[in-house]
Amino acid sequence: MSSVNRGWVLVAHPRGDNFDEILKLQVLPMPEPAPDQMLVRSLYLSLDPANRGWMMMPTYIPQVPVGTTMWGFVLGRVERSNVPGFAPGDLVSGFGAWADYCLMGTDMTNKVPDLGGLPLYAAQSLFGLSGGTAYVGVLDVARAKAGEVFVVSGAAGSVGSLAGQIAKLQGCTVIGIAGSPEKCAWLTDELGFDHAVDYQREDVGARLGALFPNGVDIYFDNVGGPLTNTVASHMALRGRIVLCGSMAKFDNPGPELDLGSILLNRVTVQGFILIDHFDRLEAANAALAGWAATGRLQHKADIVDGLENTVGAFRKLFTPGATHMGKLLVRIDPSAN
Amino acid sequence: MSSVNRGWVLVAHPRGDNFDEILKLQVLPMPEPAPDQMLVRSLYLSLDPANRGWMMMPTYIPQVPVGTTMWGFVLGRVERSNVPGFAPGDLVSGFGAWADYCLMGTDMTNKVPDLGGLPLYAAQSLFGLSGGTAYVGVLDVARAKAGEVFVVSGAAGSVGSLAGQIAKLQGCTVIGIAGSPEKCAWLTDELGFDHAVDYQREDVGARLGALFPNGVDIYFDNVGGPLTNTVASHMALRGRIVLCGSMAKFDNPGPELDLGSILLNRVTVQGFILIDHFDRLEAANAALAGWAATGRLQHKADIVDGLENTVGAFRKLFTPGATHMGKLLVRIDPSAN
Repeated sequence: MSSVNRGWVLVAHPRGDNFDEILKLQVLPMPEPAPDQMLVRSLYLSLDPANRGWMMMPTYIPQVPVGTTMWGFVLGRVERSNVPGFAPGDLVSGFGAWADYCLMGTDMTNKVPDLGGLPLYAAQSLFGLSGGTAYVGVLDVARAKAGEVFVVSGAAGSVGSLAGQIAKLQGCTVIGIAGSPEKCAWLTDELGFDHAVDYQREDVGARLGALFPNGVDIYFDNVGGPLTNTVASHMALRGRIVLCGSMAKFDNPGPELDLGSILLNRVTVQGFILIDHFDRLEAANAALAGWAATGRLQHKADIVDGLENTVGAFRKLFTPGATHMGKLLVRIDPSAN
Repeated sequence: MSSVNRGWVLVAHPRGDNFDEILKLQVLPMPEPAPDQMLVRSLYLSLDPANRGWMMMPTYIPQVPVGTTMWGFVLGRVERSNVPGFAPGDLVSGFGAWADYCLMGTDMTNKVPDLGGLPLYAAQSLFGLSGGTAYVGVLDVARAKAGEVFVVSGAAGSVGSLAGQIAKLQGCTVIGIAGSPEKCAWLTDELGFDHAVDYQREDVGARLGALFPNGVDIYFDNVGGPLTNTVASHMALRGRIVLCGSMAKFDNPGPELDLGSILLNRVTVQGFILIDHFDRLEAANAALAGWAATGRLQHKADIVDGLENTVGAFRKLFTPGATHMGKLLVRIDPSAN
């Protein structure tokens, strides 16, 4: 165990995307676990669009206070434990910090399941929050059924790429919306999506209208912003929109959904955050493992090495056309596989 | 049976609210029922915000073509029938026209149920589409439960006034949003709403925030437009918004709902039109009759006499602060009770 702990401290709340100004890498004291906490050596840090929201405002968690080491989802190894059932050496995945070492409680923390020969980072790129969100969102919230038309945005991202594949496994016709020709090619050529639409270069509404004159049954919305209304105006009668992410909203504040067609087509719009469904994570992980083991579900990680490169990596999430595909991770411990 | 038939002919599609220019009262030939139709003497004509939508665009029915006698929901008496089971003299409620006489098929047409001593117009002010929409919307779609905070807009209208009372009967705390002090007084003093908010004179968001810091569980939205987002930003965790009407949208086109709080609060937004639930009308009418008979549900009709006054009456629906309360009806046959 190294005695050095570095962490990204939030020195101000963001204005726009000024991440370089508000996040500073500092040498920090080694954190001291409270009686209900563990000290965790960070191996991988998950970078998620939601992190930006946490800095900006209260969400499903309080706003990250100025002066705090930035919060994040960490895959790590327990160093010291004051929590019964968790011992040094255990691999855990949970709510930690952008730091070499962090504290975890038991809330939102899980032991890493048996990875069955998959690399360690699969605990974040396949299982856990991304896979759980995709699984629960497609099966429980959207209730995707064979024969339905399923559109997913942020389709080359961690949740989107899994959600589209899971919908395909249910027998849906799957269309991914992504921001570059490379991402679109990955979706159709590697992941088996039926169609991919490049929102940076194509008219999404026109494509959807031409492909599906009877409308879209399910829109799994990972981005929000103006694209939501574009897809929403092509919904089929009694279609469902699952609101799973709103990263495009950061740069497009204000009302975005025209309710006229929602009413006329009797569409259901459902806000969805996985925290309401943690009881489904075990089933999700089991299903994901089975699909992955039989080659029917692919997962991809975009791994950036070095805690010091976190903010540069984070910016990729909000850069249209960035090369990033799949789960964006920072490898904090160079020895992690 | 008179031999004169007058009807309001749609001579152009509307631009804004130029109803006087596009609807012309003309003497028309007596309609001739097809083999699957009835000739109906119109007694009462229901005026509904949806009628304006029908003129403007295709909705759940095709756009009313220019040259057509305007479509509407009519309470009438069968004069001649080519439909088995319907005989001259039967009282019927259904999809007809703004005319002294109209044709009805069996689609969307029902015999008037036993009114148990209520006046004839109760077939439209209490039963049928208004009561059915309120009943199904509150019980089946919103699934209102005791203890929940229930907000309804267009609260002094036909659907809103019934929906609020039905929610109150379920044990909800009920808040009506309406457009005049007189309407608000009617809601609280006569109908038993817990609170009423005058959106013309009060800050609706501030009132809701002060009354319900934990948020609104159900928003039964009869109007759409900017008010939707005002209420939506005060929803409780896992709240439900039932989109039932969008009359305010006629003058406020464009996106109106900010999805940020919908996602964060995991709110469900559900478009709702009664045509999907006609199988529930019998149960609705039975329940409405029972509540009315025991004095627990009030219904009100604003009755305008004379087919020639239809367009003037129709305008009241779109005039904020108009004195109209309850179901707006035109009495076409002066002898109808």
